[in-house]
Amino acid sequence: MSDAISAAYYRGDKTFTVEQTEPQAPGSGEVSIRVAYCGICGTDMHVYHGNMDARVGFERVIGHEMSGVVEAVGEGVDTVAPGQKVVVRPLDHCGQCPACRAGHTHICHKLKFLGLDSDGAMQEIWTVPAHTLHALPDDLRMDHAALIEPVAVACHDVRLSELRPGEDVVVIGGGPIGILVAMVARDAGGEVVISEVNPNRLAIAENLGFDTVNPARTDLAAEINARTGDKGADVVFEVSGTQPGVDAMTAVAGTRARIVMVAIHAQKPQIDLFQFFWRELRLIGARVYEPEDYEQAIAIVASGGVDADTVITDVSPLSEIQAAFEALDTSPTAMKSLIRVGEVA
Amino acid sequence: MSDAISAAYYRGDKTFTVEQTEPQAPGSGEVSIRVAYCGICGTDMHVYHGNMDARVGFERVIGHEMSGVVEAVGEGVDTVAPGQKVVVRPLDHCGQCPACRAGHTHICHKLKFLGLDSDGAMQEIWTVPAHTLHALPDDLRMDHAALIEPVAVACHDVRLSELRPGEDVVVIGGGPIGILVAMVARDAGGEVVISEVNPNRLAIAENLGFDTVNPARTDLAAEINARTGDKGADVVFEVSGTQPGVDAMTAVAGTRARIVMVAIHAQKPQIDLFQFFWRELRLIGARVYEPEDYEQAIAIVASGGVDADTVITDVSPLSEIQAAFEALDTSPTAMKSLIRVGEVA
Repeated sequence: MSDAISAAYYRGDKTFTVEQTEPQAPGSGEVSIRVAYCGICGTDMHVYHGNMDARVGFERVIGHEMSGVVEAVGEGVDTVAPGQKVVVRPLDHCGQCPACRAGHTHICHKLKFLGLDSDGAMQEIWTVPAHTLHALPDDLRMDHAALIEPVAVACHDVRLSELRPGEDVVVIGGGPIGILVAMVARDAGGEVVISEVNPNRLAIAENLGFDTVNPARTDLAAEINARTGDKGADVVFEVSGTQPGVDAMTAVAGTRARIVMVAIHAQKPQIDLFQFFWRELRLIGARVYEPEDYEQAIAIVASGGVDADTVITDVSPLSEIQAAFEALDTSPTAMKSLIRVGEVA
Repeated sequence: MSDAISAAYYRGDKTFTVEQTEPQAPGSGEVSIRVAYCGICGTDMHVYHGNMDARVGFERVIGHEMSGVVEAVGEGVDTVAPGQKVVVRPLDHCGQCPACRAGHTHICHKLKFLGLDSDGAMQEIWTVPAHTLHALPDDLRMDHAALIEPVAVACHDVRLSELRPGEDVVVIGGGPIGILVAMVARDAGGEVVISEVNPNRLAIAENLGFDTVNPARTDLAAEINARTGDKGADVVFEVSGTQPGVDAMTAVAGTRARIVMVAIHAQKPQIDLFQFFWRELRLIGARVYEPEDYEQAIAIVASGGVDADTVITDVSPLSEIQAAFEALDTSPTAMKSLIRVGEVA
């Protein structure tokens, strides 16, 4: 592992530089991974835009939606061996706080997110704690495997919704996460409608076989009531992060509906609490994922439960990361952009 | 039942008139009750203030927090007999709507609330559908039994919270409903803190043995964190109906806390959705009660699990209903005012 590797550093001001560096050898309890692919997440776009400079600094390798192969293991690691295809669940918890002690390590009070709070996967060799690894089937395509992290987000959202087969589902917001939530909800037996205003995203959703509503043109609540015999939706996923989306989530919800808050609302929107009373609605906050969500995501991606080839709209080599971010920032049609970080057998 | 009875009619403009009228004979499936006591609810105060004129009109007998004795039963009623002490669960559902078909008759889309949408208990003889009755133990005091309806609200709230013994509970708002929620939560094993700004209500809560915080003087979230080793509350009841209460509910909530929305927010407050994401909070809408909540409320009141003699701060005869509403409207110390509607053995 003494050969120099390529790594992409975020340098601030919407700029990445690809440089040669020494790979980090795996310490005790750590594993070094030869990274195959790494997707560009919405959070990575926030970094690109400078919104997270205080957190990530200007010497950070970002990236966490990855796939790869174990290159070397550190002392005491017996859970994986070199050659194993893996993905990383990029969460490192403290083990001491009240959330960790209650068993909710994914919402640790001091949670470190790999690829933001420490270096990430936009480098040829990535060294991480062994407890973050999930093994992949040998025949899983590595580009498809780079979707497992965002699919695990969707699996967590759908699991917390307690969706039952045949229930009526509305996904508010048809971007990459909304589409994945819709796919996982459909895989779980939900009757899914996607609400989206962007015509390109509507076209993608329809190509994937989803019923859609453009709430700028159609009264969404009236449409959902018409489809459900005035029952309303059983499960709602708010993925838009907008006030109109928050208004819609209570308007379409039927009696005792579960509304999962997938979007991260930095502002404090106004919420129709009267509807929570009137129909005994439930709002469920959801954050990242737990190990079982990763295992489910691996199974869904491996089985073709998400249409990976449609979701992955382009792939660029690591050397072109700057252009890839610039293109994704302005593309009206891109869903998921992957970076091919290294050559993996 | 041909003797004339006294009944109190809401006539608009903060005015009740007590008049003589003919009692309504019980029709098929109905029961006539000789009413003993009827409490004045916050909703009744809304009627008094004219806020519900469009719904109740100016010929309405209101009142629903009652106790009484069965006077006569109509055709086909074999579930109760004359002489039985009862309370009424004042909900009449349609049986046809999606909520009823799903078994949630208490949130029927066309729910009729007895005492608002039809005449209520501020009359000596009240005739209601037999399915609304719950039988009482013979030795239960009838004044105490008039608390069962509001206690059932609290039982529903606490049941939906899934409170477990030993969990940390914050009740935001120490009015009559907040105090009852606190009592039922304490009865269920919760470690309860009441947040309230009104000094008189704080004194009442403290006299009832509750720990209290005045958030106008003490940082509520810091205090709850200090009490719980930075864990935060496991269960929060928002009973204040105010924006500061809504701000506090997310500030005091620990990881995966359940927040029960007890207050009816006519406005749409701003809610810190980021905290829902960050700590995977849950918001649970709650409306009235289900039959099992009534049975639990009867058991709690019968066992002394709520301090009825402290909660009931005054009792007036039906002839003094006007003065009772006027006094309750301005009293800084009143909790629950009862009307003694009739003489019951």
